[in-house]
Amino acid sequence: MPYVGVGMQQRGSSLRSQRMMRAYTALLVGVLVSLFIVGLGKMQADKGVPLPRQESIEEIQDQIGRALQEAIQGENIKANLRALTKEPHQAGTKANERVAKTIEKMYKDAGLQKVHTLTYDVLLSYPDWDRPNTVSIVNRNGRAVFTSKGVSQPILPDEQGAPHAGHQWLAYSAPGRVDGDVVYAHSGTPNDFERLKKLGIDVTGKIAMMRYGEGFRGDKVAEAQAHGARAAILFSDPAESVWMPPEGVQRGSIMKLNGDPLSPLYPAKPGAYKSRTIDEIKADRIIPSIPALPISYETAYQILSRLNGRPVPGEWQGNVNVTYRLGPGLRDGFKTVVDVKSSLETRHIHNVVGYIPGQDEEDRYVILGNHFDAWVYGSIDPNSGTAILAEVARAMVETTKNTTWKPARSIMFAAWDAEEYGLLGSTEFVEEFVQQLGGRAVAYLNMDCFAGNYSLNVNTIPSMRDVAIDVAKRIPNHIEDQVHLGRKTLYDTWARAFPGKDDQPDMQIPGGGSDHAGFLTFAGVPVIDFNMVNATRNSYPLYHTLFETPFLNEHLYDKPDFAMHRTIGRYWAELARTLADSPVLPINVTRIAQEMGSNYVVQLKKALNSLPANPNLLEAKQQVDFLEKAAGKFLVRAQSFVEHARHVRDALPENPYDQRKLRGVNERIMMTERCFVNPRGAPGAPQNRHVLYSISEKDSYTGKVMAAVYDAIDDYVDATDKKKAGRKVAEQISIIYHSVHCATNTLKHFF
Amino acid sequence: MPYVGVGMQQRGSSLRSQRMMRAYTALLVGVLVSLFIVGLGKMQADKGVPLPRQESIEEIQDQIGRALQEAIQGENIKANLRALTKEPHQAGTKANERVAKTIEKMYKDAGLQKVHTLTYDVLLSYPDWDRPNTVSIVNRNGRAVFTSKGVSQPILPDEQGAPHAGHQWLAYSAPGRVDGDVVYAHSGTPNDFERLKKLGIDVTGKIAMMRYGEGFRGDKVAEAQAHGARAAILFSDPAESVWMPPEGVQRGSIMKLNGDPLSPLYPAKPGAYKSRTIDEIKADRIIPSIPALPISYETAYQILSRLNGRPVPGEWQGNVNVTYRLGPGLRDGFKTVVDVKSSLETRHIHNVVGYIPGQDEEDRYVILGNHFDAWVYGSIDPNSGTAILAEVARAMVETTKNTTWKPARSIMFAAWDAEEYGLLGSTEFVEEFVQQLGGRAVAYLNMDCFAGNYSLNVNTIPSMRDVAIDVAKRIPNHIEDQVHLGRKTLYDTWARAFPGKDDQPDMQIPGGGSDHAGFLTFAGVPVIDFNMVNATRNSYPLYHTLFETPFLNEHLYDKPDFAMHRTIGRYWAELARTLADSPVLPINVTRIAQEMGSNYVVQLKKALNSLPANPNLLEAKQQVDFLEKAAGKFLVRAQSFVEHARHVRDALPENPYDQRKLRGVNERIMMTERCFVNPRGAPGAPQNRHVLYSISEKDSYTGKVMAAVYDAIDDYVDATDKKKAGRKVAEQISIIYHSVHCATNTLKHFF
Repeated sequence: MPYVGVGMQQRGSSLRSQRMMRAYTALLVGVLVSLFIVGLGKMQADKGVPLPRQESIEEIQDQIGRALQEAIQGENIKANLRALTKEPHQAGTKANERVAKTIEKMYKDAGLQKVHTLTYDVLLSYPDWDRPNTVSIVNRNGRAVFTSKGVSQPILPDEQGAPHAGHQWLAYSAPGRVDGDVVYAHSGTPNDFERLKKLGIDVTGKIAMMRYGEGFRGDKVAEAQAHGARAAILFSDPAESVWMPPEGVQRGSIMKLNGDPLSPLYPAKPGAYKSRTIDEIKADRIIPSIPALPISYETAYQILSRLNGRPVPGEWQGNVNVTYRLGPGLRDGFKTVVDVKSSLETRHIHNVVGYIPGQDEEDRYVILGNHFDAWVYGSIDPNSGTAILAEVARAMVETTKNTTWKPARSIMFAAWDAEEYGLLGSTEFVEEFVQQLGGRAVAYLNMDCFAGNYSLNVNTIPSMRDVAIDVAKRIPNHIEDQVHLGRKTLYDTWARAFPGKDDQPDMQIPGGGSDHAGFLTFAGVPVIDFNMVNATRNSYPLYHTLFETPFLNEHLYDKPDFAMHRTIGRYWAELARTLADSPVLPINVTRIAQEMGSNYVVQLKKALNSLPANPNLLEAKQQVDFLEKAAGKFLVRAQSFVEHARHVRDALPENPYDQRKLRGVNERIMMTERCFVNPRGAPGAPQNRHVLYSISEKDSYTGKVMAAVYDAIDDYVDATDKKKAGRKVAEQISIIYHSVHCATNTLKHFF
Repeated sequence: MPYVGVGMQQRGSSLRSQRMMRAYTALLVGVLVSLFIVGLGKMQADKGVPLPRQESIEEIQDQIGRALQEAIQGENIKANLRALTKEPHQAGTKANERVAKTIEKMYKDAGLQKVHTLTYDVLLSYPDWDRPNTVSIVNRNGRAVFTSKGVSQPILPDEQGAPHAGHQWLAYSAPGRVDGDVVYAHSGTPNDFERLKKLGIDVTGKIAMMRYGEGFRGDKVAEAQAHGARAAILFSDPAESVWMPPEGVQRGSIMKLNGDPLSPLYPAKPGAYKSRTIDEIKADRIIPSIPALPISYETAYQILSRLNGRPVPGEWQGNVNVTYRLGPGLRDGFKTVVDVKSSLETRHIHNVVGYIPGQDEEDRYVILGNHFDAWVYGSIDPNSGTAILAEVARAMVETTKNTTWKPARSIMFAAWDAEEYGLLGSTEFVEEFVQQLGGRAVAYLNMDCFAGNYSLNVNTIPSMRDVAIDVAKRIPNHIEDQVHLGRKTLYDTWARAFPGKDDQPDMQIPGGGSDHAGFLTFAGVPVIDFNMVNATRNSYPLYHTLFETPFLNEHLYDKPDFAMHRTIGRYWAELARTLADSPVLPINVTRIAQEMGSNYVVQLKKALNSLPANPNLLEAKQQVDFLEKAAGKFLVRAQSFVEHARHVRDALPENPYDQRKLRGVNERIMMTERCFVNPRGAPGAPQNRHVLYSISEKDSYTGKVMAAVYDAIDDYVDATDKKKAGRKVAEQISIIYHSVHCATNTLKHFF
C-alpha cells in the first residue's frame, strides 16, 4: 500500500477510495495529465472501454514503486563499488579527489541535475607515509628486542597492495617519541581509569594501553591523557575482532568534535576566518596532545606477554593467549617506545551533490547521503553505501523516464567527504546551509555502509518511526531462508530480529557515528540512519582495516549478485519516494508528544525522585510537572492538527488555491521538529542544539535523550552549591518546556 | 498606483497591462470570482455590454484602497482615545487591566477574529502611592528648608485629577533615603562624567543631578552608579522641555534591558522558570542599586540656586534662571536628601491580539502593533496610537464587508502591555513566538504615538524603504498649508521635511525606543516604525507627564476633527494592505545587498584604515575584502532573483500549481532577512541577534549598524593584547560575511 498517512494512523480499506484519489490528484499532476490523455485517447478510439476504476491512483503508485525497485540492479552496485575502491582514499588526498570525480561522473551519467561539488578547507591529519609509526620494546641497554612493522601486509595483493595501504595510524594523534612503562587500562572508559586508581595503579607519566570496543576511540585517548598518560596504544583484541588477521589494525580519528575544529559553528569556506587555533583546540582537548597509535593483536602480544604487575580483574582479560596484567612496565626492566610521526594539515575537501528537482515543490528537499572518504579502500565503510546511492540515483532518474512519475519534492543526493575524520564534510555543509535546511529539508536519510547481512537496522527519532516501518513492509525480503519461514518483507525479518516496544522493531535515537549527526543535532532535520547489520548490531568484521576490499562484499558479506546491497538500495529509494510524494508529509508529530508525555517525562521524574530529597530540587520538580502539562497540551493539539491536515488534503482538488494551504500544513509539520532546536545549544556545547536528541559528551557514538538536563542532574549530584546546581537543573527542564510549548504553537494557526 | 513591485524597481506604464492583471488574478480570488459572476450576469442580461477593460484590476485595487482610507474616521479615533484615557494606567495595575478589556471589546466590536489576551508574569516596579518620593534640602541642624511635594498638580482637573496621578517616580529605582552632596553631571553621559573627572570633581558618594535629553534615562542612572554616586536626580530642564509647566515631571523606566529581566530569552509564561534573581540583575546593573527620582525644574531650582563650586562649562548651562554650578554640595553646609519608596513586584501583563485572517495565506502575518500601558493617562504616549489602531481594525473589517476585498495574508492587530517598563509585552511575545515569527511574519508595523504635527517620520531597514515611500505617495496630505504649496501627499511633505540620500527621505535604522525592537533584533522580522513628528524629530512636548490627556490631542496637537490622527491611520492601513496583498512581497532584497556593498563595507574599511597600521589587523582587513566580494555576489544573485520572482508571478494564472512556487519565492524573500539573525547573539548580549541592526549598548534609544563589529574595534583600540583583539574583530566581520553568504544561498534553489 502506498504511503499517504497523516500522522501514520492505521487506515481502513474504506480510505482506498475516492478520498485518497482526490488527495493524490492534487499532487501527481504529471501522472494524471498523462493518464487522462491516454485514457481519453483510448475512450475515443474504443467507446466500449469503461472508465478507469477509482483505485487506479493506488495502482499507479504501486506500479511506480515496483518500477523503481526493479530498476535498482545489484550488478550496477557491484560495478560502482569496484570503481570506487581502486586505491586507498583518505580525505584530503589526490586519490580521494579522484573518487569525488568518479562520483560526480556517476551522478551526471545517472541523469541527476545540478551536479557539483562544495569545497571546504578543513584541518586534517596524516602520518608520514615513508616512515611508519612503530611501537618497540627495548632492553636495559636501550636495544630494541621487538619493533612493530607499522604496516599491515595484504592478504589479497591484487586488491590490497597499493603502496602505504597498510600504514597503521590514528588521525589527529600528536607526533612524538615516548619511552616509558605501559599500564593496561582495559577499554579506557572513565570507569576503567577509576578502577585502576582503586587498584593502586597511577597512570601519570605512563603509556596507556587500551582495547578497542566499548565507545569511541577518541574518548579513550582523551581519558588517558586526562589521567596523565604520555602516550596511548589501542589494540584490536581478538575478543571483539571477528575475522581479524593477527596483523590487522583498526584505523580511525581521535578528534572529539564534529566538523572542522578550527571553524566551529560556521562553514570552513576557502579563505573564511578560522576562529580557533591549533593550540586552543589542544588546550580544550578536542585533539590530543599525546601520541597515540593502533596496533595489531600480534604486536599487542609482545607487550601483554611481558607486562609486570598483578593479573587484571577477570572481566578485563581478553582473548590474546596470555594472562593480562596491569603493569606498570615490562619485566626485566624493559621499556616500551611509542614512535608516532604525524602532521596536521589544512586541505580541501569536496562534497558531491546532485538533484532530481521536485516538480511541485522544487524547494523542499529529501536528502539521501553517505560519505566516500575511507581509511583505506573502504569497500564496506563507506563505499558499499556510495555504490548503492549512485545506483539509487540512476534508477530513480530512469524511472522518471520510463514512467509518468516525477517526484513532487526535490530529491538530493549527497556524497560527503572527510566523514572519517569527524563528519567534516557533512558538518560543514550543515553549518553552511543551516538556515535553508531548517526551512526546506524534509528529511535526511543516511546509509553509511552495508555492515552485516542479518537484518535491517534503523536508528531514528519518534516522528519518523512509522514511515520507516511502513516502507520496510513494502520491500521484499532478500534472505531466502527468511522467505521460507514466511517472512516475506524486509520488515518481517527486522521485526523478528530486533523487537522493541509498542509492537515496533527497536529503533534507537541516532548517535554521532555518521553524517546524519549534524542534520539532527545542529539543524533539527528529521533523520533516518539505517543499514544492514549483524545479529549483535555491533561494528562489523574488519572495520577500518586494510582488508575492507570488494572481495569482502562479493564473497563474505553478500552473494555475487549483490542481492542484499540491492535490497538496501530499494529501501532507500522507497523511503525517499514516500517522503517526496506524500501530499501530507509522513512525519508523525503526535509521536513526539506521546514520547514526551509517556516516556521522557516519566524517566525524568524517576531520575529526580531517585535523588535524596532536598528543597533545592523543588524548582526542578515543579518544572517537570509543568513540562508534563505542556506535553499533554501538545498531544491534544497534535491530534486535532492531524484532523485538520486530513481535511486540507481531502479538500485539495476542489480548490487549487488550497495548494498553499497544503504547503502551510507541511510547513507546520516540519517546523514542529525545529522547535526542539535551542539556537544557543547546550551549556558549553553550542553545536549540540537539539534539546531532546544530542550526542553524549561522554560517548560520541551514542545518542542521548535530553542530555543537557541529565548533565545538569549529574552536576547537581557532585555539586557543593546545591542551590545553584538545583536551579541549573530547573533551567534545563524549562528549556525543554519552552520547546514543547513552541511545538504546540507551531501547530496553531494564530499566535 | 497600487503596489505590486518585485524589488521595487520603477516600472513603466507598459506593465499596467495584461501581465499585471495576470499576476493579480491568482491572488485576488475573492475579488475575481465575485467580479466574474457579476460580469457574467451582466453579459447574460445585456449582450451588448463589452467585457471589462483589462485595467480593472488596478482600478479595483485603487477602489479598495480608497474605500479603506475613507472608512477611517477621525471622530472614531477621538472617541477611542477618550475611552482609553479615563484614568492613569500603568502596566500591572487594575486600571490597565480595564484598558486591556476596553481594547479587547473594541477589537471584537470591530469584527476582528480570534481576539484574545496573552498573559505573562514579569518584574515591574511601583512607588508607594500613599507616600510620595521627595527631595529635601536640610540645614546644618538637620531641619528641612525645602521639601518637594513629589506630586504634580493637575492643570485640567477634569482630565488629570485622579488620585495619585501626579506621583513623581522612576520605575526600577532602588528604594532608599540618601543624605548627601549634589554634583551637577549635566546629561549624565560617559563623556559628561569623564569631563567631571577632568574638572576635578569626584562623584563617589555624591548625589548625581542630571538633565533629561541626550540619551536614555536608564543609562544616565547606571552611569552615575558606575561612578560611585549614591543617588541620582533627573530633572526636566526648560532648555529641552517645551510647554513644560514648572511642576511637570517626566516619568519613565531606568531598566537597561528589554523584556522581563528575570527570564531573559524565554517568555515569562505564568509559572515558568525564572533563570535570574533580583540580586543577579542588580549585580549585572540591569536595574540600579541606588535610588533615583525625577524632579520638576521648579524643584531643580531649589538645588541649582544653592549649589557650591565653580560655574559649569558654558554648554552645560541650562535654562533655569541661575548660574549652574558643579557642586559638590550646597552653600551654607546644607545637605540634600533623596527619599525614594519603591518596590519590585512580579505581576501579570496582558497583550491583546486580534486578526483578519488571510484568505489565501492564513499563516502569513502582517502585524500592526502599539502598546497601551502609560505612565499616567497616556493620551499621546501611547494611546493616540492605540486609538488609531483600533479604528484601523474597524475600518479594515468594514471594508471587507462593503467591498469584495479580503486580505490575501492575515493581518494581526496587537496591543502590547508594559512597553514603558522596557518593551516587556512585545519582548515576551517575540520570545514566545520567535520561531513562528521567523517563518511566518511578513513585517511588523509599529506606531507608538502621534508625537508631532509637522511631518511623517519613518524608521526602517533598507529592504522596507521603498514600500514605506510608495505607500506614503498614496496618502493625501492633511496639512492644508502644505497642500496649498503643491505638496499633495504625505510623501511630499515628508520628502521636503527630512531629505535623505538617494533621493529618498531620510530613514533611520529603528532603535530600541518602542515595541518593534524585539521583532527586528531578536526575530529578524522586517519592521517599519513610524509616526508624525515635530521638526526636530525629538521627543514631543509634555512627554511622560501628567498633562498628556486628550485635551492635548484635540486642541494643541491636532484639530478637533483629528485629521492628522486619521492620516496616520490611513498610512498604517495602506501599508498593511500592500504587504498583505502583493503577490510578490514588496520587500526589496537588492537594497540589502546594495547597502552592504556601497555603504556598510565602505564605512567599515574607513574605520579599519583610520587605525594605526598593525599586523594584528591584517586578518580583519582580509575579512572585509571577503565581505565585499560576498556582497557583490549577493547583489548579482538578488538581481537575478528579482527576475525569477517576476517570471513566477507572471506565469501564475497559467498553472495554479505554481501557487506553491509563489509561496516559495516569498519564503525566500522573507528568509533572506532572517540570515542576518545570529542565533547566538552578540558577544555578551545573546538578545542582540541581528548582526546588522541592533541596539547600541551605550544608548538603547539608538539603532546601530554592525554593533558587534564596531564594539570589537573599540575593544581593539583599548586592548593590550592586540593580537587577540585583532582576531576578535576579524571574527565579528566573518560572522557578517557568513550572513551575507546565507542570504545569497537563500535566494538559490539548490544547495
